[in-house]
Amino acid sequence: MTTDDTTTAAQHTTDDTNVADDAGDDFTVTPYDVSGTVDYDRLLERFGADRLTDEQVARFPDHPMLRRRIYYAGRSVDRFLDAAEAGETHSIVTGVGPSGPMHLGHALVFYLAKELQDATGAEVLIPLSDDEKYYAKDLTYEEISTYRDENLRDLLAVGFDPEKTTIVVDTEDAEVMYPVASAFARHLTQSTVDATYGEPENVGLSFYPAMQAAHLLLPQLVHGEHPTLVPVAVDQDPHVRVCRDVAAKERFPVSKPGALLGRFLPTLDGPGKMSASDDVPAIALTDDPDDVRETIRKHAFTGGRASVAEHREHGGDPSVDVPFQYLRFFFERGDDDLARIETAYREGELLSGELKELAADRIGEFLTAHQRRRAALGDLESALAPYRLTDAERERARQAVGLRR
Amino acid sequence: MTTDDTTTAAQHTTDDTNVADDAGDDFTVTPYDVSGTVDYDRLLERFGADRLTDEQVARFPDHPMLRRRIYYAGRSVDRFLDAAEAGETHSIVTGVGPSGPMHLGHALVFYLAKELQDATGAEVLIPLSDDEKYYAKDLTYEEISTYRDENLRDLLAVGFDPEKTTIVVDTEDAEVMYPVASAFARHLTQSTVDATYGEPENVGLSFYPAMQAAHLLLPQLVHGEHPTLVPVAVDQDPHVRVCRDVAAKERFPVSKPGALLGRFLPTLDGPGKMSASDDVPAIALTDDPDDVRETIRKHAFTGGRASVAEHREHGGDPSVDVPFQYLRFFFERGDDDLARIETAYREGELLSGELKELAADRIGEFLTAHQRRRAALGDLESALAPYRLTDAERERARQAVGLRR
Repeated sequence: MTTDDTTTAAQHTTDDTNVADDAGDDFTVTPYDVSGTVDYDRLLERFGADRLTDEQVARFPDHPMLRRRIYYAGRSVDRFLDAAEAGETHSIVTGVGPSGPMHLGHALVFYLAKELQDATGAEVLIPLSDDEKYYAKDLTYEEISTYRDENLRDLLAVGFDPEKTTIVVDTEDAEVMYPVASAFARHLTQSTVDATYGEPENVGLSFYPAMQAAHLLLPQLVHGEHPTLVPVAVDQDPHVRVCRDVAAKERFPVSKPGALLGRFLPTLDGPGKMSASDDVPAIALTDDPDDVRETIRKHAFTGGRASVAEHREHGGDPSVDVPFQYLRFFFERGDDDLARIETAYREGELLSGELKELAADRIGEFLTAHQRRRAALGDLESALAPYRLTDAERERARQAVGLRR
Repeated sequence: MTTDDTTTAAQHTTDDTNVADDAGDDFTVTPYDVSGTVDYDRLLERFGADRLTDEQVARFPDHPMLRRRIYYAGRSVDRFLDAAEAGETHSIVTGVGPSGPMHLGHALVFYLAKELQDATGAEVLIPLSDDEKYYAKDLTYEEISTYRDENLRDLLAVGFDPEKTTIVVDTEDAEVMYPVASAFARHLTQSTVDATYGEPENVGLSFYPAMQAAHLLLPQLVHGEHPTLVPVAVDQDPHVRVCRDVAAKERFPVSKPGALLGRFLPTLDGPGKMSASDDVPAIALTDDPDDVRETIRKHAFTGGRASVAEHREHGGDPSVDVPFQYLRFFFERGDDDLARIETAYREGELLSGELKELAADRIGEFLTAHQRRRAALGDLESALAPYRLTDAERERARQAVGLRR
């Protein structure tokens, strides 16, 4: 499962093509299109996923993104939690498509996965879908190879446990990924793909859902059948559903992967706008914190009033204020601190400019720490080596789908 | 380019699905369906390929399959011949899908390729499309892996020059084949695939034409742009055309592969029937020559008369006589000898039973020699090693489509 850079928990944009809404709803959420004002409850009905219960959240390692229901729904979550609590094998799959610098939205999912791994010992698989980006974007493989290396540095900087973490690149590890994808491709009909994603432009995009299934099922092929959790923004749920259907149809030793479904982090220019304008860049993990501060000062949509006097009198609206939402999603981890900020803003004590500075401080601290670890990596190939599939793991995956040398 | 076992120069069968005929013709020829009485001239018009000229045939190394116009048409043949005559790089691509034992029909193409290689020094690439067979047939990868190994032994027994011959298996060499196929997949639209092959049943079959393109273009990615010739039964020409279109669209250093298009060798039960019945097996390269003789005696369709007396008086019809056609296609290499047999049969001197024995003799000699070489191979992995892509070749192919480590 890869998190498309246009539609992650941190960023989503719309494109020009309109995929039809479900009748009666005034919003569209598919992996390639998010538009309208998203009703997260209706979406669960539409997709058939389950809202996280308080009990489930309590069973997860404590994390603000769960406590605050940024991740608010899922599929087969209990199976994952059962295995984690019992000390049995359980895995998390979360990837990225290398078509540009990695942004805050990607980072949030990876840092969440890392914290879950630290707490429960989860296996983590991170697939880089360079093939998908080639199929879907007007980029050469030269360009994608460059982004891939930069993205890999960001992933390594997160600090996953190399003993329990595997990073694959679809074209680099095609020796495993293509045979495994091919094993699932036979039971994935073109009409299922058409119905889920719209008719693909090219045969690479037709095939790609089988590669996605290979991502989500690889941990089970390598380590044996076990519960897998896929944390994604809710628009990516169709990928998980397609894979669950394929897993159920196949005769391979895999069970359906579970999902942990998240809300969209608003783009900097605000929750009212559903597409980022070209002149409001997303925050990249490699951006200079001072530049990020400037970007937030200049572009962040706020819930403040038209004048300071009015703000002092009536207060701001944190629910639409992007700096506040960034703090709530991830960057202010203390619930009490967050509540204080929210109250102060709502009551007009805290001005929009001050809230922007607060968010810029927290995001800057995060970026500084990330960039420090990133700079310490040294040679990429050497740094990546402990995270690559071993020969034995490659062979196990191939054998699990019936191939033998 | 793989030669589907249902539709090679040696064997073709129909399946239940009917792909629509071109209006006005009473036969159907597509890679997945051959039915009706094939008009080979109309087919060239329909496909837009060129009949081989006498001059072109004279420029090829002398071979009965060319002299007798078993291979009767082509695309971009002159470019290939120019390079062969100039001692410049030129290649032949001909493969097989491992879904059963290899049959005579496969062998004819491979032995032709070997003789061309001996005469002109052509590079030969032999792709084994185990992925396609998995997509298209109700076989497991376990079963396909077994056929693959048996097919590989047959290929090695042909005696290709290991210095100039490469054998790839799609899933074994996926490290190269998938990235290269993906590079071409972006410019292959789903609608092109639908129009060429009918709507694919699964996304593997949607993608597979991109893998075919990777087969046909791999020699150029490894050795630099040069003329490639793909000898196939004429029903496989759409694969070549799709690949030619892709090659023309892409920015990679490849030119359109050429084709050498062949007629269908009739099935044992005769040219009148367009599908082999279940109780008339095709002749496998591993069949015992004595069993083959029995099969020919029992099942071969002949052009003989109802009685010996009638045959002596009116003579037989070699044009529909399967034993004669087998001699003509490949197994009687001397034109004078073949002409004598034809005349004797036509004039009633040679009986159908005698003609069957003649064909069984020649086929038996061929099989015995093939099987002797096959048995001498020893360990498959060691025997195959000199034919595998080198690491440098793999890297050149990946780099040619823009990928870098």
